[in-house]
Amino acid sequence: MAHIDLGVDEQRFPGISGPLRFRPETAEPLNQLAEVLLRGPHTLTRGERELIAAYVSGLNQCTFCCNSHSAFAAAQLDEGMSLVEQVRRDLDSAPVSAKLRALLRIAGAVQAGGRNVTPALIEQARAADATDLEIHDAVLIAAAFCMYNRYVDGLGTLAPAEPAAYAASAQHIVAHGYSI
Amino acid sequence: MAHIDLGVDEQRFPGISGPLRFRPETAEPLNQLAEVLLRGPHTLTRGERELIAAYVSGLNQCTFCCNSHSAFAAAQLDEGMSLVEQVRRDLDSAPVSAKLRALLRIAGAVQAGGRNVTPALIEQARAADATDLEIHDAVLIAAAFCMYNRYVDGLGTLAPAEPAAYAASAQHIVAHGYSI
Repeated sequence: MAHIDLGVDEQRFPGISGPLRFRPETAEPLNQLAEVLLRGPHTLTRGERELIAAYVSGLNQCTFCCNSHSAFAAAQLDEGMSLVEQVRRDLDSAPVSAKLRALLRIAGAVQAGGRNVTPALIEQARAADATDLEIHDAVLIAAAFCMYNRYVDGLGTLAPAEPAAYAASAQHIVAHGYSI
Repeated sequence: MAHIDLGVDEQRFPGISGPLRFRPETAEPLNQLAEVLLRGPHTLTRGERELIAAYVSGLNQCTFCCNSHSAFAAAQLDEGMSLVEQVRRDLDSAPVSAKLRALLRIAGAVQAGGRNVTPALIEQARAADATDLEIHDAVLIAAAFCMYNRYVDGLGTLAPAEPAAYAASAQHIVAHGYSI
């Protein structure tokens, strides 16, 4: 049971979906931000951006968001869930491009706190041909998931145990994007 | 100098204002979220909500956001900056209502991580007559500033040293709200 009465059946609307229905005025910008960052036109694929979201959510130990965005990334990456799991287990050895690895390192620094992003981390990303926009969006995706993760867990929402729930959400997100 | 070329004069557009100009597609939901949470119709005053934002930004050691929202809170609280400073220095002894103190404690727990919000913290807020919406918004304001703070510091933006810069921003926000 969530900490407040969200006015929904939490089994049917787990995780962030309950709070989004509880407060439509904030749901609109929260959904719009996710849509632009994770699905808008970009030089990073949707799968790569969802991978950053899943990675940060894992670092924040947010079960609902990590399971959700891992499923969303897997559904949009050629390598599927195995790549997501490798990145989450050991970023240094995971088979991702030098650019994506550098952006994931920046995201990991942001998760621990914005001041942890060093010039050296930025230089590594630039050396791997990351653009200013890609660096900006890696920082903001990581920062945004430090919000979404705290929103979901700070309200004590339900995280389904069964993987099928997240796979079903992935189908919906891939087809329809972030909207209520 | 920020970590990326924001395309603005950072002296003129310090802190979050540079990144907001760099990426208008994400600026829109970021501004809209702040507007709804901090200035929309509410049972908590604008000053009280800005105080939550300032408190969390202080815990995140984000100089630009903490100075900014402290000034915005002070401009909209009868007690001015002295109350903001007391809350930031020692929440337990600060002269705020039992409800606001309980909401600030929830916000402080969210800053450390969503899972730190305990049923006991929620019970304290309810015992002080906090509504579900007030608890929801305290959680989301705190979560959102864990994003804004990381966005500002993760990009290495400039934080003006002189208090006059923040006081000028406060006049603008009080008059015009959160928009570019």
